[in-house]
Amino acid sequence: MNAPTAASHLIPEVQQRAVPQALLDALKARFGEQCSTAMAVREQHGRDESSFEVPPPGAVIFAEKTQDVADAVRLCSEHGTPVIPFGVGTSLEGHLLAVQGGVSIDVGRMNKVLAVNPEDLTVTVQAGVTRKQVNEEIKSTGLFFPIDPGADATIGGMSATRASGTNAVRYGTMRENVLALEVVTASGEVIRTGTRAKKSSAGYDLTRLFVGSEGTLGVITEITLRLYPIPEAISAAVCSFPSIADAVHSVIEIIQLGVPIARVELIDHNTVRMVNAHSKLALREEPMLLMEFHGSPAGVKEQAETVQEIASSHGGKAFEWATTPEERTRLWTARHNAYFAAIQSRPGCRAISTDTCVPISRLADCLLDSVKEADESGLPYFLVGHVGDGNFHFGYLLDPNLPKEREVAEALNHKLVSRALDLGGTCTGEHGVGLHKMGFLVDEAGVGAVDMMRTIKRALDPKNIMNPGKIFAL
Amino acid sequence: MNAPTAASHLIPEVQQRAVPQALLDALKARFGEQCSTAMAVREQHGRDESSFEVPPPGAVIFAEKTQDVADAVRLCSEHGTPVIPFGVGTSLEGHLLAVQGGVSIDVGRMNKVLAVNPEDLTVTVQAGVTRKQVNEEIKSTGLFFPIDPGADATIGGMSATRASGTNAVRYGTMRENVLALEVVTASGEVIRTGTRAKKSSAGYDLTRLFVGSEGTLGVITEITLRLYPIPEAISAAVCSFPSIADAVHSVIEIIQLGVPIARVELIDHNTVRMVNAHSKLALREEPMLLMEFHGSPAGVKEQAETVQEIASSHGGKAFEWATTPEERTRLWTARHNAYFAAIQSRPGCRAISTDTCVPISRLADCLLDSVKEADESGLPYFLVGHVGDGNFHFGYLLDPNLPKEREVAEALNHKLVSRALDLGGTCTGEHGVGLHKMGFLVDEAGVGAVDMMRTIKRALDPKNIMNPGKIFAL
Repeated sequence: MNAPTAASHLIPEVQQRAVPQALLDALKARFGEQCSTAMAVREQHGRDESSFEVPPPGAVIFAEKTQDVADAVRLCSEHGTPVIPFGVGTSLEGHLLAVQGGVSIDVGRMNKVLAVNPEDLTVTVQAGVTRKQVNEEIKSTGLFFPIDPGADATIGGMSATRASGTNAVRYGTMRENVLALEVVTASGEVIRTGTRAKKSSAGYDLTRLFVGSEGTLGVITEITLRLYPIPEAISAAVCSFPSIADAVHSVIEIIQLGVPIARVELIDHNTVRMVNAHSKLALREEPMLLMEFHGSPAGVKEQAETVQEIASSHGGKAFEWATTPEERTRLWTARHNAYFAAIQSRPGCRAISTDTCVPISRLADCLLDSVKEADESGLPYFLVGHVGDGNFHFGYLLDPNLPKEREVAEALNHKLVSRALDLGGTCTGEHGVGLHKMGFLVDEAGVGAVDMMRTIKRALDPKNIMNPGKIFAL
Repeated sequence: MNAPTAASHLIPEVQQRAVPQALLDALKARFGEQCSTAMAVREQHGRDESSFEVPPPGAVIFAEKTQDVADAVRLCSEHGTPVIPFGVGTSLEGHLLAVQGGVSIDVGRMNKVLAVNPEDLTVTVQAGVTRKQVNEEIKSTGLFFPIDPGADATIGGMSATRASGTNAVRYGTMRENVLALEVVTASGEVIRTGTRAKKSSAGYDLTRLFVGSEGTLGVITEITLRLYPIPEAISAAVCSFPSIADAVHSVIEIIQLGVPIARVELIDHNTVRMVNAHSKLALREEPMLLMEFHGSPAGVKEQAETVQEIASSHGGKAFEWATTPEERTRLWTARHNAYFAAIQSRPGCRAISTDTCVPISRLADCLLDSVKEADESGLPYFLVGHVGDGNFHFGYLLDPNLPKEREVAEALNHKLVSRALDLGGTCTGEHGVGLHKMGFLVDEAGVGAVDMMRTIKRALDPKNIMNPGKIFAL
């Protein structure tokens, strides 16, 4: 493992090229009102939830079907112009930013659930369907789709970043839950990766090559997902701890015992305070675990008893149960809004979010030293974590007008990533590399592995038009 | 979906090139007694459990460490000579056959368990460690590695073919259970894919690109695997059914209800008879489900009750419990020996094994028509299946001296694969493509997707030396 280089956290130089007029004309001719060059539209498609400022793309195509995506990519390919797929714009790492200019392909109108196969526990959707929409549309089947990043992201975007969320500790990430894809390649061809069979050994795993490829190899247009029966019994609980260490040690023990807990989220006392203010709750302002148990009534009871015992042995108190669906929803909505609660706690601030993930046995080592560093820095921050997976997020809340604060935040992130890599972890558990972690990726994977990624990129996208400048420099 | 072409099931023409003397000299100089050109050694490395006959590789290197593999690959690369990784030779699809000549790299001596991390539920092993060895060496930790193809294959080979087995219905396949790899690339460089973190969004998923790549992109030298706590309670049961249809419909219902069954295997009446003869058992010679339940004592009881009810409603009878570990081991050993039991039932025969996998709702459609066709053909066969995943194997038992029988078997397989693809399934659930399913892969994935695989292959192995002639023709 090399030490992260000083430049790891800098975003690469922006080198925008203008979209050629001939391409704009061709796009207008093909797409009519589905093509926009209005500044407001371009600006909306030129930013995400990251803290970077980059000029917007030169045009936006509102794709309504796969063939639209294919035609747009083909036209862009003919002109060697970059293509940036866009869902709802909730990326945290600058994935959507037009650092080399180009055309944004908005798949938001491709929002149909194409096929529900309840008997096979699968659903096939267009890329612009959001995770909440999936669950809304399949509600009557008694099934659900568990992956839940904080935002109501599109399934296309979640596939492209290999997203996960609070349920991943039990149900896995997009890596485990995407069965098959339809993809528009860099030359505008439409291919399918995988079938609806639950497993397969038929050739290279193109599905998982595209899951997490951040739009750099092609545009994902359709996704077949795994679904799960809504558990017969669900119960949620909140437990406060004297310290973060006590909470974390409880989690480590829960996981090591193999308790099939469905969710186990850490929220530090700072963040509980922000969440209380934002969501009008009265949670104890102490480090807290927010948990959920899925199973049969007897199974849930058994899990809860085991967990309660473990928590007690680490000073956990005020174990409170949310028994009604309404109470549960209120708690989890509060958790999912933690990011926005934090942003509101410091008006005008922007957040730089960390995303390290370490083997569970190293979680306390990684987290506690980083809490100490963050406290010492004086920068306001929030801390939440999918701690059952060893994944957590500091959000450093900085004043964008104070460059010094960004420096402090980046330095904290830098130390945290170094520590996580030293402990056998990764710089990003679920947000992706985007612009912000390109240096860290090299530190983590090594030059040889990143070179292999580059070789694949060059082979599948010889003109370097698919979301160029993300994941690695070419 | 295109209809499979008539030539789908034919293996490609063998075009062996001799290993250049200069390379042999260089290998001898570097490896001494670790390099063999003895005919008996070459022949042992030139066959697997498939029914193909191809002349052996020109030399065998017995690698003892990663650097040995790297040096062997580098030398072969300098001479443009094919490299064929070899574990214990249990492939069913001709993966190990030297169809273009070359050097076999035997990783069997790389059989060290390198790191057990019980607190993280991971283990890191060299490629030559077998699945039984893993479980033997980690026994004291209270953890186990669930993936169990019939044979005691190496973890390297299982990774390369994306293997699974009887536990996959609950624990997933190698796709879900390999966390990270060390790989020797086609140029002899050593890279690592992934970390020990449970999840990551750090760049392209090279781990899953290599899992299932059948030695065509590089040689897997180390593997980090996920482990699971040995369940507090395990119970196994056997249940007989009036017909295969009744057994299959029970399985479909079990899966659709979301019962977390750990194993559910179908064995048809033919095969029960063969297994009884081979393993000295007295199982009822009727279609049978062999099941296992993992969990807490209460959880296992709950699952078993649900399943027993479902089975009864489909005419299941003689639900018999194997309560002691010895009884369970005896039953599962019998299941794992079904292949060998079948081979022995027709002395001198060879088996052609099918490997289709379909969405569970289509399992009955796929299986029952194929049983009818097999019965009508008059060819002896066995039928076993990981039916919880929609995956099953016919083994057509043919006399290698009667070409007509091979034709009949291939025709049956052909019809079966066509049917599976029409039903949204795959031609191979767990054995891989190898030599035998190259045509079927194109039928399944389409020309565009297979061309993408070829592009990746050409980019990562520009000299086409890594197990050439497998998965697809270049």
